[in-house]
Amino acid sequence: MKKLLTHAAAGLVALSLAGIASAQMKPEDAIKNRQSGYTFMAWNMGKIKAQVVDGTTPYNKDQVVAAANVIAATANSGMGALYLPGTDKGKGWKDTRLKAEFFKEQEEVGKIAKNFIEQANTLQKVAMTGDQAAIKAQFGEMGKACKACHDKYRVEE
Amino acid sequence: MKKLLTHAAAGLVALSLAGIASAQMKPEDAIKNRQSGYTFMAWNMGKIKAQVVDGTTPYNKDQVVAAANVIAATANSGMGALYLPGTDKGKGWKDTRLKAEFFKEQEEVGKIAKNFIEQANTLQKVAMTGDQAAIKAQFGEMGKACKACHDKYRVEE
Repeated sequence: MKKLLTHAAAGLVALSLAGIASAQMKPEDAIKNRQSGYTFMAWNMGKIKAQVVDGTTPYNKDQVVAAANVIAATANSGMGALYLPGTDKGKGWKDTRLKAEFFKEQEEVGKIAKNFIEQANTLQKVAMTGDQAAIKAQFGEMGKACKACHDKYRVEE
Repeated sequence: MKKLLTHAAAGLVALSLAGIASAQMKPEDAIKNRQSGYTFMAWNMGKIKAQVVDGTTPYNKDQVVAAANVIAATANSGMGALYLPGTDKGKGWKDTRLKAEFFKEQEEVGKIAKNFIEQANTLQKVAMTGDQAAIKAQFGEMGKACKACHDKYRVEE
């Protein structure tokens, strides 16, 4: 079964994994939950950036591993379930910036989501090695994976 | 060194682990980040509840493990750094509900924080066993660990 899945399809499966669990969720709660996940992820990305990219904070392996664990766990949490049909409009903590194209280009979204999960899993593994140069490089890949979705499916502020 | 730490002190260390990294954070961002972490955690607690407590959603081991991973990673992320002095007042996504007592009872806060982390780590381990009765029991312990802080340091709505 697994072998039959294309990469894009596997991404879609990952995206929709928790779909059933959230069938009753209100649109505003779905938006709020995904905004929360990305905000908390961004805080953790910021800690890694400060320590291994900008050097504004001394490197601390435990902190970087803890941050990478949050990023990987968030990416693997089935956030696709929070993209209820119609939630390219609406307000969670704030107005959603999701473009309607997100729901029309599910194959592309699946590819982006699959890469996002893979890069997050790799970041988690690399963080545990303590190799700062490798962490910095993988942090860059993670950033690109985030940006791929932002560029296509997030309204510019 | 580790052996000299009391449980409460170890909790405080865990709470303040990422403190330096966030020295420059604005109070409203600190509040927003912690509100995001707890909101996203609550979504993941809800998925476990639906599957192993309420039975409103069919049990899916991968989903429960993924949810427990988010909860454990969040608990271990050094959220103590988001409790900047003075942030018992202020607005992140919404007005904070943190009581001023949080900053005056650091030994008690440390104990509660340490237990919160321990229960989250245990939930993560138990989730991986796939033993639904054990997951249900540990979910209860996790809920108590959350409630211990809410009861003492969160303003009732």
